[in-house]
Amino acid sequence: MTKLVTFTDAKGPRVGAVLEDGRILDLSAAATGGALAGATQDMLALIEAGPAALAAVRALAAAPPPAAVLAAGSTRLLAPIPRPRRNVFCVGRNYMDHVAEGDRTRGITNSELPKFPQFFTKAPDTVIAPDDWIPPHTGTTQWLDYEVELAVVIGTTGADISREDALGHVFGWTIGNDVTGRDLQRRYGQWFKGKSLDRSCPLGPWIVPADELDALNTGIRCFVNGEKRQDSNTSKMIFDVREIIHQLSIGFTLNPGDVIISGTPEGVGYAMVPPQTLKPGDVIRCEIDGIGTLTNTVQAA
Amino acid sequence: MTKLVTFTDAKGPRVGAVLEDGRILDLSAAATGGALAGATQDMLALIEAGPAALAAVRALAAAPPPAAVLAAGSTRLLAPIPRPRRNVFCVGRNYMDHVAEGDRTRGITNSELPKFPQFFTKAPDTVIAPDDWIPPHTGTTQWLDYEVELAVVIGTTGADISREDALGHVFGWTIGNDVTGRDLQRRYGQWFKGKSLDRSCPLGPWIVPADELDALNTGIRCFVNGEKRQDSNTSKMIFDVREIIHQLSIGFTLNPGDVIISGTPEGVGYAMVPPQTLKPGDVIRCEIDGIGTLTNTVQAA
Repeated sequence: MTKLVTFTDAKGPRVGAVLEDGRILDLSAAATGGALAGATQDMLALIEAGPAALAAVRALAAAPPPAAVLAAGSTRLLAPIPRPRRNVFCVGRNYMDHVAEGDRTRGITNSELPKFPQFFTKAPDTVIAPDDWIPPHTGTTQWLDYEVELAVVIGTTGADISREDALGHVFGWTIGNDVTGRDLQRRYGQWFKGKSLDRSCPLGPWIVPADELDALNTGIRCFVNGEKRQDSNTSKMIFDVREIIHQLSIGFTLNPGDVIISGTPEGVGYAMVPPQTLKPGDVIRCEIDGIGTLTNTVQAA
Repeated sequence: MTKLVTFTDAKGPRVGAVLEDGRILDLSAAATGGALAGATQDMLALIEAGPAALAAVRALAAAPPPAAVLAAGSTRLLAPIPRPRRNVFCVGRNYMDHVAEGDRTRGITNSELPKFPQFFTKAPDTVIAPDDWIPPHTGTTQWLDYEVELAVVIGTTGADISREDALGHVFGWTIGNDVTGRDLQRRYGQWFKGKSLDRSCPLGPWIVPADELDALNTGIRCFVNGEKRQDSNTSKMIFDVREIIHQLSIGFTLNPGDVIISGTPEGVGYAMVPPQTLKPGDVIRCEIDGIGTLTNTVQAA
């Protein structure tokens, strides 16, 4: 599996690939021009450089130049796209059992499924790295919640993309945690406010290229302090990734490097009995089979 | 009145000030260092350079170096911030009579006013210039609509900004037209989809510095093909600019160059009897007293 990362060390942020032994291949040190010329400046440049650049990365990762492999423990991962060029696109209410649990908290018994995907956004600056801390937002929200989500990274520009062509526009997959101020989400009617608190979008740990994973049918789970809270499969989405890309791109141009998080399954804290809120010190581990794990901690008081 | 613009000519995009005779002072040509060193690269740099840079611009505009004044007709205005660094923040249902007209179209007679501002966003790439064309989005929406709005440009970073401090974070004012696919806005539940069609955010024509206009009490109007459709005053906002900045910044950091459009008054097309949709060739003129006019045309078929 190819694992494309943005990492940092004393020399600053760069793009790399995680090797089988866990060490990072520094792509800017390994690349000697060709398809990677100009493509190792950052992840957005690598994405824009297209399939030939990705093939070159795979070749380098298969036979890594020893001088470009960094010592274990000398690096720290950033979010694969540390700062998207525009807001992260999000889909709400996209797993049937999550719709039902949400309705239950509002006393609605006959849940009606959305007929169209419900799109909203999180500011690009909300993105944080694997192992980064999440603020407790004490005093701002009474109800901080987690949401594991499959994150889609767009590879090629397009508007009015058909369902059939949609996966051809995907560069790769990663994991997002749509941290939410649940009371704010309700209070403000539209969801942006409760969804875009500072540092509320953990993203990572790496991007797996589109063709290395059937992301439309893979396990997705979330644990809080080791307790399993969410456990589903992306095949249970109401609108799958093809439909999300199709609908979002109607009259609206998607760009390379755009990030779409595709909704969360059932098991969020506010729908538990009794409801659970995230607390300072809580450790949230998000898992997607075929990608990896994304762990973040709510900052201790 | 100081009119800060981004303009272009054969030499490419630059920042300037519109003089009383309508000609543009090219700030990068006029600036000789001092407070403007590094501040004339683009509008975001000028905003970040702070009050001393703005004072320097005013001094130059009062006694413009003749060599830096460009010939009439040689320049074209762009949006004052041609591409915000993140999505444009928007407020919905923020004038009482607009809430009422919207409810009326849905058969609701006892309108309930929002208790908190309803925030959503438009992608930064939707921003277009004064006199730019708007796509008719035929086949995408049956119901293309206009919405004149006061646009607030943030000047200084802040989170948890109090009502009292809010205006101190404003760099200036301009005009936005929140072009909307009204059927999409309803169909997708959350408003992002209907609000973020390509080229759906005309912005301009210039930024008027915060202290040169009482933007909390000024006339706001919109005309379609010369017919007055919207005619109100920003004092009629349910949540005024101070409250919008306060609420939006709760747990969320605002940055210099952020653009917030603050909601539209009554008189939009979909609430007319019979309802009116924008059509190819329609000319939309948005006016705010103390700023100016922003005119855009729906592309002819």
